[in-house]
This record gives sequence, C-alpha cells and structure tokens, in this order.
Amino acid sequence: MDQRTKLPVVGMVGGGQLARMTHQAAIALGQSLKVLSAGPDESAALVAHDVELGSHTELADLQRFAEHVDVLTFDHEHVPGEFIEALEQSGIEVHPGAEALQFAQDKLKMRRRVGDWGGADQPRWAPVSTLDEVLEFGELPLVLKAATGGYDGKGVWVLRDADQAREVVEALASAGTPMLVEELVPLRRELAVLVARSKFGQASAWPVVQTVQEDGICVEVIAPAPELDEHTATTATAMAIALAEELGVTGVMAIELFESTDGRILVNELAMRPHNSGHWSMDGAVTGQFEQHLRAVLDYPLGDTSLRAPYTVMANVLGGEDGGPGIDERVHHLMARWPQIKIHLYGKEVRPGRKIGHVNISGDDLPRLREIAQAAAAYLQKGTFDE
Amino acid sequence: MDQRTKLPVVGMVGGGQLARMTHQAAIALGQSLKVLSAGPDESAALVAHDVELGSHTELADLQRFAEHVDVLTFDHEHVPGEFIEALEQSGIEVHPGAEALQFAQDKLKMRRRVGDWGGADQPRWAPVSTLDEVLEFGELPLVLKAATGGYDGKGVWVLRDADQAREVVEALASAGTPMLVEELVPLRRELAVLVARSKFGQASAWPVVQTVQEDGICVEVIAPAPELDEHTATTATAMAIALAEELGVTGVMAIELFESTDGRILVNELAMRPHNSGHWSMDGAVTGQFEQHLRAVLDYPLGDTSLRAPYTVMANVLGGEDGGPGIDERVHHLMARWPQIKIHLYGKEVRPGRKIGHVNISGDDLPRLREIAQAAAAYLQKGTFDE
Repeated sequence: MDQRTKLPVVGMVGGGQLARMTHQAAIALGQSLKVLSAGPDESAALVAHDVELGSHTELADLQRFAEHVDVLTFDHEHVPGEFIEALEQSGIEVHPGAEALQFAQDKLKMRRRVGDWGGADQPRWAPVSTLDEVLEFGELPLVLKAATGGYDGKGVWVLRDADQAREVVEALASAGTPMLVEELVPLRRELAVLVARSKFGQASAWPVVQTVQEDGICVEVIAPAPELDEHTATTATAMAIALAEELGVTGVMAIELFESTDGRILVNELAMRPHNSGHWSMDGAVTGQFEQHLRAVLDYPLGDTSLRAPYTVMANVLGGEDGGPGIDERVHHLMARWPQIKIHLYGKEVRPGRKIGHVNISGDDLPRLREIAQAAAAYLQKGTFDE
Repeated sequence: MDQRTKLPVVGMVGGGQLARMTHQAAIALGQSLKVLSAGPDESAALVAHDVELGSHTELADLQRFAEHVDVLTFDHEHVPGEFIEALEQSGIEVHPGAEALQFAQDKLKMRRRVGDWGGADQPRWAPVSTLDEVLEFGELPLVLKAATGGYDGKGVWVLRDADQAREVVEALASAGTPMLVEELVPLRRELAVLVARSKFGQASAWPVVQTVQEDGICVEVIAPAPELDEHTATTATAMAIALAEELGVTGVMAIELFESTDGRILVNELAMRPHNSGHWSMDGAVTGQFEQHLRAVLDYPLGDTSLRAPYTVMANVLGGEDGGPGIDERVHHLMARWPQIKIHLYGKEVRPGRKIGHVNISGDDLPRLREIAQAAAAYLQKGTFDE
C-alpha cells in the first residue's frame, strides 16, 4: 500500500516496452508502476519513477524488489518458475502465478495441458528428441519448436528437407533443449484472442483480431479480424475465456491461433502478459490491455472491451539499418502527413529489426487504414514514403 | 537531446496533475517528461522518471533545471514573468514565452490586450483601486477580480452589497493587489474553447465545450457543448485561433467563455497550458490536450482533434471530508458498476474539495452520460451512490 495514494502498489519484473506502457496506464489509475529493470536505459526504466535495477534470474533481486509491492507481475515470461514458486511460498501475491505461467513458458507443457483439457483444437504434435522421431511423426515440411525460451519467431523452425532438419534437431539436442514437432498447418491466416482474468475470476475478452507475421515477427494487427464469421468468433472467444479459467490465469493472456485453409481454429501459442497482438486496444478499445492487466492483477473489476471504432489497425515499427539518427525528423514528417495516427515509441536504442514502437489508426475504411499504418511504420523505419 | 532516444527533452515547471498527465502522454511519443517539482510527493513527481526538486520562484532552480532540457514549459502560470524573460534571454526555448504568458498571468493586461485587439467580445470592465471606483463603474451586483494569482474561483468575488464590497476591496487594496471590476454577465451557461498553437504557427482547436462550475470550481465538462448553434461554434473557434496567433501562444491555450442570456459570447479568462476544460479530450478526442501540448511546444505538427464519440462528459473528482482512506475500495465498486468509465486519479493526498482526479465517459445518450459521470465523481468523493 502506498501511504501517499492509499492504493496498492504493483511491481513488474522486466523493463521492456510492455512495462513502459503498463506504467502509462497505471498513471490514470492513480498508480505508479514499480519496475525491476536489468539496466537504467531499458524502455520502462526511462519513464517509470520507481525503478530498481536487478536481474530476473537472481532470486535475491526478485525478493528485494517484491518487499515493497503488493502485487508482482511480469513484462515477460523468462523468470524461472522455481523462483516464482519461492516468491509465492513466502506470501507474495504473484499474478500470473507459477502454476499458470508454466504453460506460457514451456510449449511442451502447454500442448499436453491443452490436449488433456480438450476444450480447444491444436495442430497435431509430438515431443521429440531425435531426427528419427521427427521423421517418424510425418513427412516434411514440419514445424520444430524449442519448448522454452523462444519469442518473435526465435525457437521455431520450418523443417523443409532432411539436411536442414538434421542440422536444427542435432543442434537443439546437443544443447539439451526439449523439442516438439508439429504439423505445418495450411494457413488461411493467423488470429489472436486476448482475454483478461482477475484473481476473483472475472474474465473479459477483446474481439478476435487478425495478426500478420513476417519472418516470425508480428508486423500488423487488424481489430477486429475482418470477415470472421460470428460463430467462429464466438467459439474462439468462449474457448479463450474457458482456457484462462482452466489454467487459473490472472492478468492478460494472449492466445495466438491458426485459421487453417479448411476453417479449423487451432491454438498456436500462449502468452500470459500484455501482448503485441493487443497494442491496438490502447487506442481502439474503451479499455486497453495495459489498463486491463493492471485491473486484473489488482483484482479490480475489468473494464469495457468495446471497440471505439469499426476498425483499428496496428503496425509495428522496426528499427532501420541506419540506427535511427533521424527519428525525430521522421516523427515530424509522419505527424504532418497523417495527423490521425497514434504513435507509440518505446525509447529504445534503434537496432535493425528490433521493435522500437508501433502505430495505431482507427476508422471504417479498412484497406485505407492498412495502407496508412504500413506506410507509417515503414517510414519510421526507413525514412522514405513508399506507400 | 536525449542521446538514448535521439529525441528532444521537454521539461515542465510544476509537479501537479497537469504535469502528471503530460508525462503520461509523453511516454507514447518516446519522451520522458522532466519535471521540476516543489516536493517529492507532488502528483507528477510520483510517476515521472526525471524529477528535480526545486522552486518555480527561485531563478537558480529554474536555470539549473533548464540546463538539461531542449524545451521548457509549464504546469501552471505562477512562474514570475521576469524569470521567464531571463531564461529566454539566456537562449532557452520557453513555450509559452513570457510575452504571451503575461496575458494568462495578469487579468488586467489580458483585458487591455483583448480590448485593443478587438477580435473578441468581453464583459464591460475597468481597472479599480478603491470602492468609489467600483461603485462609479455601475450598480451592484458586480464582479471583482484580483488581477493576478487566482485559480479555481479564488481571486474572484461577486460584490452583492456595499458592505461586502467594501470589505473585499479594502482587503485587496491594503494588500496592494491590482484589481478590476466587471459587469456580472447574465449567464445562459459557460463555455470553453481549447486551441493549441505550435512554434511554427500551426493552430488547431477542439470542439467548443460547455463547462459547469460550482463555487468557482469546474465540476463538469460536456464535449461538444450541446445545442450550440453552428455559427456561434465556428465564430468562437475562429476567434480562439486568431487570439492564439495574436498573442503568440505556443502550446495549449484555454479560453473560458460566457454565453449570455442574450446570446453574446464573451471572453472570461485565459489559461496557457493544458486545462481542466480539456481533460475530456484524453478519452474523447483522437488527440488529447496533453499530447497536443507536447507536439506544440516540440514544434511537431499537431494531431487530429476529431471526436471519438458523439459526446464525452468529464466530471471532476473532489476530495471528500474523510481524507480518502477508502479510495481503493471506492475505485473497486465504481469499476464494477460502470466498466465503461475512464478513471484518472492524480495520486494526490485527499483534502476536502481538492481536485484529486476526474472521470470521462463517452457515448451518445447525453443525459445518461451526465448522470453517470456525476454519480461516479460523487461516489469517489463520498463513498455513496446518490445517482
């Protein structure tokens, strides 16, 4: 409890852009997010008032940080599960808890758990540890995933021929990385559904969105997913809420989905935190995902997830080759060209391909919104309008 | 220039809620607002990363603070004009500048300047220094204003009878406070128009709003002002933009207006900063006033001021008699009752009558929106639903 504001204190482990935007949302709720950051120049550490420097892989750092917070939550899923359990056992409120978070940390555990549950379809999958097991599973191409540690397409490979398959599998095997193999789903497109669930058990979902990936990185999100039939949308949303309940999630959970060419909806991955597929909600929904995550972990009632506009398109801004010396000038030109665009920059050092921000744009002319969002993101990256 | 983000640095003098909400908006622009705060527990000092403690009435504090910013701006209008001039003369970018800001700091200067300009109507007024001059001006009731230092109804008196008039005038005269007297305008209602103007000279306005005052404090704002005829709205907006140009304002300027019973629109007061009458724009407009103020002082192109909904109603949350021990529980109940309400709390210690936050609600059923906004604000203040 902050004696000045008489409100509970939320601490977030990790100083990335998700913590940065959670702090932004916290300000409106009378809060000031405490951040455990690996360094002083991390995205959230530049803007939060209460920053502690420390490592998410040092239990002592986590314990010290947790001493002055009422609720502990996460910017990422990389805190070792045994540390989270230790924190919980010492009486600290952790949301999501270790029991739920393991299913976002370990893809093997997630596949088994969702399979046992039976409430959602998944790609056909199997745990593997050798190339033979991969080839026994089915004909190439197949998808190989490292069970832990991946993000933004890292840790996922499409195995297209035996030589490449051998190389990847042997590299992972020699590193001792647990693996799973999955069918390569023939894709119509990728979707995502975001839910939030509070400690009390209230759950709420935003409309199902379409996500567009390039090289495994999400580059664009369309909210709501266009031309998604109502039955599919309702089913996916109900599944997401049921899964959040089943896993005992507290906070925001993103479920990345495949829509197959034959219309099946299959669970791809889970994330238990605010997620890139929900950045549109900052401007496109009455309650954005960062505010909702705070409400959920604080055990406040959840906010209205209604759309503020028929469509909102989010495009990720990636770092350009030039290291971003002209970012200020680019922002200037972008604002001049599209005064209706909402810019979100993360204050991060620009490195090629790194997510350094995103833009949102809302309206009713979806093709035009997509053109503008893509052109705006590309301009911030490259400094040329190639709309 | 922040070498980490390669973006210019904005510093704001004053640690109140306006700085707090400006920091919130700054985060999206890749910025981190630097704040000069009188104490560590001020509203903005609780949430901003870069806080310097110091006084806005100490030139040395201002100079030290300004050393590490590219643009200096203000949370309030209480920095002495000669200090602002000194900062400008030493080469610091200050927005708004001393030349413009004096008209928000001194009501006598403002009345003279607007009168000389001739582009806007004002109440009949005169400078006074004695009761005789007040009584010569016209019959009571009249309005007496201290030329400087007032806010939230402080520094403004309605003189209703000779005894009370004598008391007020003599008190001000003995304190050496310059005064002016004005006709008591027969009011249909109060309006406000908010504009932003960049250093380059680009200007933009939000729709004219209606403001509701109680005891001189703004308690409610309706955006846009209902049933305002288009000609009046257009005229008031054009006047506001022209006045911002005339005065050389950079940043947001609020013009508080009287709409008289006979339909005249008269300038009441000016504020050169984000203003309570613009808090609705945080949720009700594509670009909120805090982001727009930053764009204007950074000389970025201004953002779209379109409405996000037919109506947005803002209600101020005032501190209750109990000092707010139950604010966390009240927030909880409020969120449960109205998930669509946007809450903005300032982190301030609760004192009776003090502005500690506001709520916004958007939609199309104006009477219902007003009921909810008022009931929500009253609940946070008193802990009872008396809708």
